[in-house]
Amino acid sequence: MKIDKMQKTFVKEVADPKEDFAQWYTDIVKKAELVDYGPVKGTMVIRPYGYAIWELIQSELDMRFKVTGHKNAYFPMFFPLKYLQREANHIEGFAPEVALITHIGNTELAEKLVVRPTSETIICDMYSKWIKSYRDLPLLINQWANVVRWEKTTRPFLRTSEFLWQEGHTAHATEQEARRETLAMLSIYEEFCKSILAIPVLSGKKTEKEKFAGAIDTYSIEAMMQDGKSLQAGTSHYLGERFAKAFDIKFLDKDSKHKFVFQTSWGVSTRLIGALIMAHGDSRGLSLPPKVAPIQVVIITIAQHKPGVIQAAQALHDKLDDAGIRVHLDESDQSPGFKFNQWEMKGVPLRVEIGPKDLECQQATIVRRDDLENKIIKKLSDIDKSVQSLLNEIQTNMLNKAQCFRDEHIKRANSMQELECVLNQNCFALCVWCGDHQCEDKIKQQYSATSRNMPFEQKTVTQPCVCCGKKGTILVYFAKAY
Amino acid sequence: MKIDKMQKTFVKEVADPKEDFAQWYTDIVKKAELVDYGPVKGTMVIRPYGYAIWELIQSELDMRFKVTGHKNAYFPMFFPLKYLQREANHIEGFAPEVALITHIGNTELAEKLVVRPTSETIICDMYSKWIKSYRDLPLLINQWANVVRWEKTTRPFLRTSEFLWQEGHTAHATEQEARRETLAMLSIYEEFCKSILAIPVLSGKKTEKEKFAGAIDTYSIEAMMQDGKSLQAGTSHYLGERFAKAFDIKFLDKDSKHKFVFQTSWGVSTRLIGALIMAHGDSRGLSLPPKVAPIQVVIITIAQHKPGVIQAAQALHDKLDDAGIRVHLDESDQSPGFKFNQWEMKGVPLRVEIGPKDLECQQATIVRRDDLENKIIKKLSDIDKSVQSLLNEIQTNMLNKAQCFRDEHIKRANSMQELECVLNQNCFALCVWCGDHQCEDKIKQQYSATSRNMPFEQKTVTQPCVCCGKKGTILVYFAKAY
Repeated sequence: MKIDKMQKTFVKEVADPKEDFAQWYTDIVKKAELVDYGPVKGTMVIRPYGYAIWELIQSELDMRFKVTGHKNAYFPMFFPLKYLQREANHIEGFAPEVALITHIGNTELAEKLVVRPTSETIICDMYSKWIKSYRDLPLLINQWANVVRWEKTTRPFLRTSEFLWQEGHTAHATEQEARRETLAMLSIYEEFCKSILAIPVLSGKKTEKEKFAGAIDTYSIEAMMQDGKSLQAGTSHYLGERFAKAFDIKFLDKDSKHKFVFQTSWGVSTRLIGALIMAHGDSRGLSLPPKVAPIQVVIITIAQHKPGVIQAAQALHDKLDDAGIRVHLDESDQSPGFKFNQWEMKGVPLRVEIGPKDLECQQATIVRRDDLENKIIKKLSDIDKSVQSLLNEIQTNMLNKAQCFRDEHIKRANSMQELECVLNQNCFALCVWCGDHQCEDKIKQQYSATSRNMPFEQKTVTQPCVCCGKKGTILVYFAKAY
Repeated sequence: MKIDKMQKTFVKEVADPKEDFAQWYTDIVKKAELVDYGPVKGTMVIRPYGYAIWELIQSELDMRFKVTGHKNAYFPMFFPLKYLQREANHIEGFAPEVALITHIGNTELAEKLVVRPTSETIICDMYSKWIKSYRDLPLLINQWANVVRWEKTTRPFLRTSEFLWQEGHTAHATEQEARRETLAMLSIYEEFCKSILAIPVLSGKKTEKEKFAGAIDTYSIEAMMQDGKSLQAGTSHYLGERFAKAFDIKFLDKDSKHKFVFQTSWGVSTRLIGALIMAHGDSRGLSLPPKVAPIQVVIITIAQHKPGVIQAAQALHDKLDDAGIRVHLDESDQSPGFKFNQWEMKGVPLRVEIGPKDLECQQATIVRRDDLENKIIKKLSDIDKSVQSLLNEIQTNMLNKAQCFRDEHIKRANSMQELECVLNQNCFALCVWCGDHQCEDKIKQQYSATSRNMPFEQKTVTQPCVCCGKKGTILVYFAKAY
């Protein structure tokens, strides 16, 4: 009874996600100690627990980039404003939100510098020096960095004036190779989200209206959040020769002709942590897939003053640690109930309880974060194997659950009325569209929904456009989005 | 003959370190493809080969920080200028070189923001929110980040307007614990430099004049470069309660009293790559200790058109790769001589040559970067073990060599004449000093040398001050420095 009461008090501090998803999100990021707000509006501090998730994301992605031949490098964070201006669409997209450095101490700079909102231009400037011959291609570079985009409305992880990301920038001898790279990186993102974050994303091509400023084609992965909104979780751009022409990146090809390179860029950011929260969290807090959980197992002692309990908990900790499991033993003097709540809030996939009764039977009691109702009893002798197999099950279960949720929340809409109805049910609408941006504008204006992307698998389209009723040409997802 | 000629042409492009060490350094960083210059004066691009060294440094240090209980986090890069001003000494140290953000797009900000030159103030602001009770202590956080200090004279890695570093920031309940942390981190830096970078640094305390702006005590590790100059390779600061008082960081102690925390901060940066270059490089280029070499072994084929050569080289590559050795097979169509030069320039510790003659005897020819004169013949059957053992030998040999060089280049100086003489011999001068900063000023003015640090092991001082002749109190190293 005491514990129940305490649980209620604790949970009460978090909004009900069914009633107020936005407030729930804000509560979770603070209560799970993922972030705090910086002193400047729109900035965030990524606290150790949040940063540990980012480190796991980094390590998984970095490995994938390196296996596919990419190398990391680091480019300056500031460069002359005029660089952004060289590619006309690029500056148009970024000018209003770019941070400018004008002074050093009391001295005014002769030339205004921008803090990078993205690094295409500075990197292209260097590529124009480094690339001379076909032998220098392909050039496959990635950068882990902070970038700055001063947005009016900000939310931790989702939209902050400074955020962390990786940005890949590659140069190729042919269009075909660059296009292949663009899609290969998108597919790495898709696989990563699925197998590591347990988020089944929707891959596809962005419409002209929604593509990256400066790109010929932009592809995205879209993740469905539990409020039915879409979160653009990663993008991959085919840049063609546009930046190469603006920055004069030419190479001497095997046929002794000078040619412009074909480029790509692609990135994911700390937004992915926002996606994790909103894809898997619930009324009790965060719920992390084991593969990105900084703590996969928390051990909580029951009646720890009783003889042997602490020692058994420590032995259990060491055994799991030795097995390569990220385990934490909570030895604090708080009550078990308090601890249960705290670690549920932090989304730790498995809780292992050990007390005098467990010790008598040489067992431990295990509770899954994705199934808090059931207690699982396991023998201490081979608990490392039981735990590892439970972690695998949780990873699979979380993906399946997210997949079912997603599939249930995608509906076809053949008219504006149906579209409205689908959006009001917090679903993605799969629509036939004529390809005209005026229809996108109208849908955005009326329902605050945007085109997310156009799936690769396009069935033959026979219906008319969901909006204007003219000849439809393509299937596209419309949804409200972060 | 052909090879010799080519080698000369190649090497000629690099200055002789004995004649012009500064030019040699600049040549090496470019020719070894470690960095390039950014478009804004004082900025640098860290190219993939240079960044790979940084990644190895990061991974080694990060492991050491985590083992000692520190966690990574990320704090905003910009904060209000007034933050820097809260601690009087701190602002005095950083104000002239701080970059200011004044505009977003065309809109002027109401409050000027600084781009972090270091993060004590923003982190203290957060600590004042996070630390409430003795239970929250110690708080042990590290950050990997970019920082900006706009210096007038810049050189790649050594002094650039933006650089990468790590900064640890810890808060403790007692002075004793904070002082212990300050020295523990210094000693981690020392051990890391010695065992990984093969650089035997000198640890000690900075004089009042040379300490960090805002610190009570600053400790440093000083690395001797081959031109006899010192490079401050890392610092650890005991901050006492100064920042705690400026930012009101108090905790409720076990005795129910509110107390200020005691703090430390400590950092190393991409400067360490500069230290590596100048501690080990030679007239043929970079020379990397195996533990921080992105490529530990390069395989070069001789007469690769002959049957079996390429296959044998590939098999050798796979064998070394399987053994966890960072190996690269150079299959380019350049001549062996060109390749030898290129990989010597890049400082790869071992070169393995394989050609028809080697194949006949089922062996390979190995050349050590730290001993280019001798060819070592090893059987292919257990070449992985031979290579690993050679790498270990190189690591040890490079440290020993640097240690001998350092010991030979430290000399006692008992008068200003002797000091001048020691400095002119490109040595560090170990001097007795009275503790007065006017003597430091005078030595700096006359010989452009600064006090580096005061060694921990202080023998009883009986001689007079090297400069003023008054009573000496302490031993200190004077040297020219980067």
